Amino acid sequence: MLVRNVAIIGLGLLGGSIGLAVAEFLPGISTRGYDADPQTRDRAQARQLVGMVCDSASEAVANADLVIFCVPVGAIPAAAAEIAEHLPADAIISDVGSSKQTVGEALRAALPHHVVIPAHPVAGTERSGPDAGFATLFQHRWCILTPDGNTPDQALADVRSFWESLGARIEIMDARHHDLVLAVTSHIPHLIAYTIVGTASDLEEVTRGEVIKYSAGGFRDFTRIAASDPTMWRDVFLHNRGAVLEMLGRFTEDLTAMQRAIRSADGDALFDLFSRTRDIRRSIIEMGQDDARPDFGRADHQDG
Amino acid sequence: MLVRNVAIIGLGLLGGSIGLAVAEFLPGISTRGYDADPQTRDRAQARQLVGMVCDSASEAVANADLVIFCVPVGAIPAAAAEIAEHLPADAIISDVGSSKQTVGEALRAALPHHVVIPAHPVAGTERSGPDAGFATLFQHRWCILTPDGNTPDQALADVRSFWESLGARIEIMDARHHDLVLAVTSHIPHLIAYTIVGTASDLEEVTRGEVIKYSAGGFRDFTRIAASDPTMWRDVFLHNRGAVLEMLGRFTEDLTAMQRAIRSADGDALFDLFSRTRDIRRSIIEMGQDDARPDFGRADHQDG
Repeated sequence: MLVRNVAIIGLGLLGGSIGLAVAEFLPGISTRGYDADPQTRDRAQARQLVGMVCDSASEAVANADLVIFCVPVGAIPAAAAEIAEHLPADAIISDVGSSKQTVGEALRAALPHHVVIPAHPVAGTERSGPDAGFATLFQHRWCILTPDGNTPDQALADVRSFWESLGARIEIMDARHHDLVLAVTSHIPHLIAYTIVGTASDLEEVTRGEVIKYSAGGFRDFTRIAASDPTMWRDVFLHNRGAVLEMLGRFTEDLTAMQRAIRSADGDALFDLFSRTRDIRRSIIEMGQDDARPDFGRADHQDG
Repeated sequence: MLVRNVAIIGLGLLGGSIGLAVAEFLPGISTRGYDADPQTRDRAQARQLVGMVCDSASEAVANADLVIFCVPVGAIPAAAAEIAEHLPADAIISDVGSSKQTVGEALRAALPHHVVIPAHPVAGTERSGPDAGFATLFQHRWCILTPDGNTPDQALADVRSFWESLGARIEIMDARHHDLVLAVTSHIPHLIAYTIVGTASDLEEVTRGEVIKYSAGGFRDFTRIAASDPTMWRDVFLHNRGAVLEMLGRFTEDLTAMQRAIRSADGDALFDLFSRTRDIRRSIIEMGQDDARPDFGRADHQDG
């Protein structure tokens, strides 16, 4: 791998985790980082998220052969413009955004003379900010790369090798297809979770206190992802509108069918769906993508 | 407490957990159990879920002063009819069903000479069957009782004391209100989870393998509750139709508003919702109703 100096722009959950993971798994690589928020830079310094916390993005990228944007996808065009003049000619440009088509286009437009390899590590928690990151975030998670027809093989091999060293498994995908897959596996689940938590907060007949008290019946699961970073998720929906609206259309059709089954007391239709959905969980556990213990192995059941 | 002999009808996750919890926390009380499925009875015997596994429901209730139905709510009327002739005159009748209005009516109709105190311990996991139960399932969980105006104080005190001994906290509630509260905190979340998992399984553009692979982006959370027992959940929706349809109507209104916000690129509307929903998670954790660790403290993040 030819990468020696990595610049991380944005030092929240993802940027911080990359910095910590490089220190742990790629100790020969040096990292510089920058965040637009001075308080985040202070915390990054205190936690040593990167080898050097810089006071400007241009300083962070000055010696970089790999630059990774870890800011909300809506902030990427401005962040790319900010470093354009200071970027070494052979630096590879990447990111960690949850949508890839508009991000790839924006990066290639802002930095037309550089190799751009958009990336999406499918990993995270509901926490955000410089205190949320940890070195093992990417272990056993997939990282999707969306190069285009012009991407040099060596640069692609370098980015692949970088992520593999942090513990991720690599998949190469067309950006458009990525956006469709992630709409269903990530974006729609977040939208639904945010929405049901909002609905439950605003009822007249059921108080907020009751919703909280009896949340162990299922609702609490949705509150976890509905506690995710609002700016990041606003940008995801604005930048993956087409795929999100398409998948949302499918979901609401299916939900309407369930509503009709309940209204007409069609127990067979309900049973049919409810018994088809178990297999997917089994496969997810077999593929190492979730905890096999009941209830995610939550602390209060560990005695069980 | 006057309860000495408890009969448990249905030896799945809930029934089995009650049996194990009584053995651990109320060792002075004897338990008998029955399940219509002979294989479940065998497993119940092997795991010693109850003190005596009986070959008929009538034998299980023969000496009972508390009978708890732990079968899907749709099976309660037949199960109640089955024991009616064999029931000691002063036995208290209860259950653990997730809907309470129709269940209470059915039990009172089937057993008009007995005290009926419907109960709903808001606890469970996605597992079901006789191997799923454990003694600590009810610790720190709420158990909602829905007595009516005719319920004798002593019987109510006995049932309360029984559940408190198993680790639960008690709330007394009107059955109709219970059904509305649980529609939003439990039934709608399950319906949504089942539906999105079904939607994701049936797409043409995105394969099932891709859905499984990239499920860590949020989708995997939904697959947990969508792995719950299909018979139990079919019955819940058939028995709590009114409240479920009402709450579903609210949810789909809100989802439609979000769809409109995405279509019209109204970032402020998205940000507004996404930043309102964090507080509820914080409150749920403060109330001891969920694990405070990121990502539910899933095993693969315990290093972090």
